Amino acid sequence: MDKQIILFPMTKLNLHYQKLSGNYLFPEIEKRVEALKLKQPNAPILNLGVGDVTHPLFPNVIAALTAAAQEMGEKKTLRGYGPSEGYAFLRKAIAEHDYKNISPDEIFISDGANTDIANLQEIFSVENKVAIQDPAYPVYVDSNVMAGRTRPLLKTGRYGGVTYLPCNEENGFNPEPPNSHSDLIYLCSPNNPTGVAMDRDLLTRWVRYAKEHEAVILFDGAYEAFITSGAPRSIYEIEGAKEVAIEVRSFSKSAGFTGLRCSYTVVPHDLKVRDAGAVHSLHALWKRRVDTKYNGASYPLQRAAEALYTPEGQKAMKETVRGYNDRAKFLLEGMKKLGYPVFGGIDSPYVWCKTPPKISSWEFFDFVLNNAHVITLPGLGFGPSGDGYVRLSAFAEPSAIQETLTRFKNLA
Amino acid sequence: MDKQIILFPMTKLNLHYQKLSGNYLFPEIEKRVEALKLKQPNAPILNLGVGDVTHPLFPNVIAALTAAAQEMGEKKTLRGYGPSEGYAFLRKAIAEHDYKNISPDEIFISDGANTDIANLQEIFSVENKVAIQDPAYPVYVDSNVMAGRTRPLLKTGRYGGVTYLPCNEENGFNPEPPNSHSDLIYLCSPNNPTGVAMDRDLLTRWVRYAKEHEAVILFDGAYEAFITSGAPRSIYEIEGAKEVAIEVRSFSKSAGFTGLRCSYTVVPHDLKVRDAGAVHSLHALWKRRVDTKYNGASYPLQRAAEALYTPEGQKAMKETVRGYNDRAKFLLEGMKKLGYPVFGGIDSPYVWCKTPPKISSWEFFDFVLNNAHVITLPGLGFGPSGDGYVRLSAFAEPSAIQETLTRFKNLA
Repeated sequence: MDKQIILFPMTKLNLHYQKLSGNYLFPEIEKRVEALKLKQPNAPILNLGVGDVTHPLFPNVIAALTAAAQEMGEKKTLRGYGPSEGYAFLRKAIAEHDYKNISPDEIFISDGANTDIANLQEIFSVENKVAIQDPAYPVYVDSNVMAGRTRPLLKTGRYGGVTYLPCNEENGFNPEPPNSHSDLIYLCSPNNPTGVAMDRDLLTRWVRYAKEHEAVILFDGAYEAFITSGAPRSIYEIEGAKEVAIEVRSFSKSAGFTGLRCSYTVVPHDLKVRDAGAVHSLHALWKRRVDTKYNGASYPLQRAAEALYTPEGQKAMKETVRGYNDRAKFLLEGMKKLGYPVFGGIDSPYVWCKTPPKISSWEFFDFVLNNAHVITLPGLGFGPSGDGYVRLSAFAEPSAIQETLTRFKNLA
Repeated sequence: MDKQIILFPMTKLNLHYQKLSGNYLFPEIEKRVEALKLKQPNAPILNLGVGDVTHPLFPNVIAALTAAAQEMGEKKTLRGYGPSEGYAFLRKAIAEHDYKNISPDEIFISDGANTDIANLQEIFSVENKVAIQDPAYPVYVDSNVMAGRTRPLLKTGRYGGVTYLPCNEENGFNPEPPNSHSDLIYLCSPNNPTGVAMDRDLLTRWVRYAKEHEAVILFDGAYEAFITSGAPRSIYEIEGAKEVAIEVRSFSKSAGFTGLRCSYTVVPHDLKVRDAGAVHSLHALWKRRVDTKYNGASYPLQRAAEALYTPEGQKAMKETVRGYNDRAKFLLEGMKKLGYPVFGGIDSPYVWCKTPPKISSWEFFDFVLNNAHVITLPGLGFGPSGDGYVRLSAFAEPSAIQETLTRFKNLA
């Protein structure tokens, strides 16, 4: 008799991970690009797939980083453990510059918007019903799958138990609140990948829906800096939003912080949830999570972020964003002229391009890769409603964008 | 009829957070220190409570940080998103210098050992039975409470459903594997707060227990650099440990990185768990978590950590650790001479001091604070078996340690 097998239970895994789609977008793209390189080693490949920045850190950011590093080399000015929520100097700068009605202690500094948007769901019950835009940044749905808040993946490419909010040409890529109930709503505006922002009226309807349903909106504003249309940059521009919404923001794209890692999340004190016969502050819950599971963002990185709020930093950030916006507009207009149905690009560095009739996003990806040697991002990677589209990124050199347009022209 | 209240369910919270003990160690200490300052504004307070470093960053670390910042200011050398698991240059340096039998791709770079030790439990089922040393770093139990892996807090100060492994004078603060079954075992060696390391034989018994029970050990080696007794610095020094253990390490204490934030976790490929009729790789699960929920550690911080593996970095780290070890030994011997029963201090910067008979850890904390103006850390903050002890930290200036000893002498 094997005592060990019979007497002892074993460590069990979080089997919700097994539900995750095995389709990794970026490794699959890499595989196909490598295959092309094998066939045609000299193919002059252009990458309009990535959402990574090309503009380096600003001089005053580098100066702030360097000065902070120096400080930490002196016993007198060394900074050890900092506040888990971030240093007051940065929280204060953010509150003053980026908001009118948010106090510094409602702001939590972190190492990245991705980390926060993935972790925020933790403070909510696994029983909650989640609503997400489709297509959307994959981490919203994946983090909820991992937490057990969904049923298995269906043949439709959708996870059971999740309310998908299709963003398509018919609704201008801007979904209305559904007729059904939701508890947690992920809204990304301007949306990644479609590049389309929600206007004031639509956001107002979402805030009203959240109030009616006592739901919470997790608002991803990672691309707010790129808005040029007058759409709200923050959900807190909508009356009452402080009572229903958490907002995540990033320095990644506007200040080139993708490799540096610093961002912030706003959890207003007014945001309360009734549960188990009591009223709970989400600020207190999130603070408890941050205090327990996080030791704060790196001090030099917080000084680097602070430098963005100087006149020099603000000017550099505006110029950088304008540069990316100009490229996006050039790409959008160029694709339009070539007859492609394209969207986004006005409030976002991304252009959302419809594929020709009956051509899937992966088929179009392959066609463009192999015939124009341009890497795009297949829309299916962002959700089932993303099929039939590819994302083109303006985070590329102007010459690469010009050359891409020339090659698309020759494709026709 | 109020349609809204009747028809709609509401957002539900993760109510496991409500189980968490409301006793915050550090805020409570702060409150009591503030009370003393109000009564005696000129009290010459010495802080031997904190576990934060006093030694600044090494010159070559600052040079690496500065050079990386400069790199990121040039278009040609800018680094955007890096690998979520960390850059190969750092993973390779760690594998080569810190291990004999670990490959670079088994190493995951993160922003802090605290983050990883708090998040690792996520890849396991909430059904698992957790065993923890008592006293121990509070995040082990708190992260499991938040995940719902425990029952409520009992009057004993213990959470229901958790196997506490008492570390006390009788067992030399080194607990043997229990007779009961456990799935997830948190071992910290050298332990924080007791300062005592596990020897080879005991760790071998723990590895054997984990194999017999098909359990997983989460090994916290944050203080391994301070070992002087010959105790294992890594659990992988024990044969077979790669099949049962994950190890977390830190640059925080040995290199003064508490405010900089960079650390690493080892998940060996040999570590497999059987569940739901299949064999699963924990490396694959953790990689999936990291790829989804994390965008990698900051590039300049990874360059700073790499600098620790140069001859200059290694020398500085050894000297720094030796300095803290010398202070700990001085503190330990001094307290012994004064007649206090003290432990730890040999393999750790912490001295674990028994309070006089029938005096609780908070009573002793108050007595020492108000009469000697020295801040200690009450053992109860680390678990119920910590009561009757306070932790003294050698992360203090030698003059402060000397003065502390003088004041303890005058207390008698």
